[in-house]
Amino acid sequence: MFTKDHIISIRDFSKEEVDYVLDRAEELEIYARGNESCNLLEGKVLANLFYEPSTRTRLSFEAAMVRLGGETINIYSQESSSVAKGENLADTIRTVAGYCDVIALRHPQEGASRMAAAFSSVPIINAGDGAGQHPTQTLLDLYTIRREGLLDGLKIALIGDLKYGRTVHSLAYALSLYGATLFFVSPSALKMPEEIKSDLKEMGAEIYEYTEVKEVIQEVKVLYVTRIQKERFPDPTEYSKVAGTYRITTDILKENEDVVVMHPLPRVNEIDVEVDKTKHARYFTQSFYGVPVRMAILSILLGK
Amino acid sequence: MFTKDHIISIRDFSKEEVDYVLDRAEELEIYARGNESCNLLEGKVLANLFYEPSTRTRLSFEAAMVRLGGETINIYSQESSSVAKGENLADTIRTVAGYCDVIALRHPQEGASRMAAAFSSVPIINAGDGAGQHPTQTLLDLYTIRREGLLDGLKIALIGDLKYGRTVHSLAYALSLYGATLFFVSPSALKMPEEIKSDLKEMGAEIYEYTEVKEVIQEVKVLYVTRIQKERFPDPTEYSKVAGTYRITTDILKENEDVVVMHPLPRVNEIDVEVDKTKHARYFTQSFYGVPVRMAILSILLGK
Amino acid sequence: MFTKDHIISIRDFSKEEVDYVLDRAEELEIYARGNESCNLLEGKVLANLFYEPSTRTRLSFEAAMVRLGGETINIYSQESSSVAKGENLADTIRTVAGYCDVIALRHPQEGASRMAAAFSSVPIINAGDGAGQHPTQTLLDLYTIRREGLLDGLKIALIGDLKYGRTVHSLAYALSLYGATLFFVSPSALKMPEEIKSDLKEMGAEIYEYTEVKEVIQEVKVLYVTRIQKERFPDPTEYSKVAGTYRITTDILKENEDVVVMHPLPRVNEIDVEVDKTKHARYFTQSFYGVPVRMAILSILLGK
Repeated sequence: MFTKDHIISIRDFSKEEVDYVLDRAEELEIYARGNESCNLLEGKVLANLFYEPSTRTRLSFEAAMVRLGGETINIYSQESSSVAKGENLADTIRTVAGYCDVIALRHPQEGASRMAAAFSSVPIINAGDGAGQHPTQTLLDLYTIRREGLLDGLKIALIGDLKYGRTVHSLAYALSLYGATLFFVSPSALKMPEEIKSDLKEMGAEIYEYTEVKEVIQEVKVLYVTRIQKERFPDPTEYSKVAGTYRITTDILKENEDVVVMHPLPRVNEIDVEVDKTKHARYFTQSFYGVPVRMAILSILLGK
Repeated sequence: MFTKDHIISIRDFSKEEVDYVLDRAEELEIYARGNESCNLLEGKVLANLFYEPSTRTRLSFEAAMVRLGGETINIYSQESSSVAKGENLADTIRTVAGYCDVIALRHPQEGASRMAAAFSSVPIINAGDGAGQHPTQTLLDLYTIRREGLLDGLKIALIGDLKYGRTVHSLAYALSLYGATLFFVSPSALKMPEEIKSDLKEMGAEIYEYTEVKEVIQEVKVLYVTRIQKERFPDPTEYSKVAGTYRITTDILKENEDVVVMHPLPRVNEIDVEVDKTKHARYFTQSFYGVPVRMAILSILLGK
Repeated sequence: MFTKDHIISIRDFSKEEVDYVLDRAEELEIYARGNESCNLLEGKVLANLFYEPSTRTRLSFEAAMVRLGGETINIYSQESSSVAKGENLADTIRTVAGYCDVIALRHPQEGASRMAAAFSSVPIINAGDGAGQHPTQTLLDLYTIRREGLLDGLKIALIGDLKYGRTVHSLAYALSLYGATLFFVSPSALKMPEEIKSDLKEMGAEIYEYTEVKEVIQEVKVLYVTRIQKERFPDPTEYSKVAGTYRITTDILKENEDVVVMHPLPRVNEIDVEVDKTKHARYFTQSFYGVPVRMAILSILLGK
């Protein structure tokens, strides 16, 4: 059923494997909430090996491990230079693997996790490798959607920087496994790359492209909002204009009273704080769901 | 009896609530010593969210949590900037609250904890907010005094910088609940502020002001010594003169053979190291008492 | 049998005490592998107090403690300055001792651990004090050799910088307890110091000195390789020449098909990566053995 030794890319997953992880996450969610304690991974050790800071991801892995009764040891980015002082990643991985049962690796270089897996005696979980993959983020996005009962045949708007956004690329791919209709909403300079669109179409996804949220809001069940980075625009005035257009407010949400708003966080001002109090907001819940999803991954990899 | 959801300021506490915490601390002290293990908070997670370094306070909270069988996840000051990268405190709190059962927050801005509490789905413990409050420090000071059997109607000298010293302000307030007589000993430039004195008098405290330790040492049971910071004096010679006057030595302690010496630590040279070996010294014990007191707070907030 | 309160220097150990630690490590190795969980140190707390970074050592101590069911609190080098802000080591030790049951201390100054032990109410483990001692490294080296069945009367080549190398000094001493024959292989500028050689001879060790690995490889069971630091050579060309000579390759290993290659790690290029795949390589296993050895030390000191 689930035969992976390492979690490197969401593109390695079949639909059945995704379902398997999400089923497991659902079983474990009660422990993620801390209301009941769990000893499933008692005596097991997760090493968070982070070559760049990503506090949110690290904390979520730590919380997942301790909620399962396991323990975490952390190698922070500011230290990684010293672990790695004159040492290649392969040596560091083989050393750290001697101290733990599973490694969550965050690394600025695309492909680092796959390389690490080749040298590791324990499972590697890719916790983000540069412009590459961040599969547990995608799984928590899917879990959030599934908990809304919306996973099959979802109509979703992916909004913001679709050109450079690793998160939306992976999510679009994964949703295509479930027969999604994808509405891409972005400034014309930040459109979804052609090769990804053609991959998605091959997988059977229906795809539409727009430049404004108001054009699609009544068609979709979910708005998946991402940040548009100022640095993508040579001209700051251009950025301000664009950022304003993609900002989600209570006003625009009046167009669809059931739509769910997601965001991988942190947000800057893509979503007005007024939205937080509405029934549309799901982004903090989504962030919490990182815990049961990572619990599922950890327990599956460690054979429990 | 104890109905607080968050621990923000010692001024929110009634005498009964302080007693309740100190009673609980006394019960838990045996576990704080590590001689017996305790599983009261098994499966529970404390997040130490520190926006500025305070290693001592962080360690004390960590020790308290693990002595109760719980787990801690840490967000260090050097990372907080990255958690908070373009993110307001409210968003960070809501995210971190998804990973834990209780948050100890250290923040440079007065009022940060009360603001955080408004957004948090889990209890907030103020672990110091700038010039504001640090209620667990006050509680451990009270606990130390109570363990000496001196809490009711105590005669105490508060020594050093009484103008800016957050610690002595809170302690003076809390001791007033127990009918204390307060001897304020400070350089004239660093006297206890008028508004605090009038508050204390209203609460029924007896107050006296002095400029030298030798004037009061025979009157009191406790010398509570604090640091006088060089930066408070425009003229370094002035500082040296003052610092010398407020320095506690074995010589001056000959004036009162039963007096107990406390200090919130770290000390610079307000207390001569020769005092460490005498029966007067209580500052390292006081520091240790931070553990049972924080255990009490954690167990009460988490309903155990 | 084992009566030490603190672990400061391997030179404080008798042969019987070393055996006692290694026996215990062997019993605990199964738990170090994470296949079975162990609650021996449940409720106990180790404080890693590191005044300089040494991620590998810290992680190994952390892993050892959690594999025994205990907990770790960390004070990192970047924070130590703040713990120690205007505070001497004695005060820091007394404070930290109030939060834990045992302290692993890493400090840049020789003698820091022995000084710390004088002030600590809990056991101190020296995790490296500058040019001084690092006894748990020596114990894991001995354990690795013993696990090969080679500890008694071993013929070993110690290779590299024998002048400044703290690791090889301690190891040479400890092996002398077991009747070793020591082949020192180093550039002439980095020879084993005379006073150490005379100590070793007094202990009954046989000593030979060489300048090239090929002269001794057929005589020995173990090659213990250490790094030669560029900074030791005023002339970079001189360094390159030397570094090449002491590099272990699959080629030179053809001269002795049973020889075991050890290295305290991290390596730069003293050992060719091609060696990793051969049966000679034992350096990653050696690194892992740090866990059972430190488990042994922790459990003995805490009386379990």
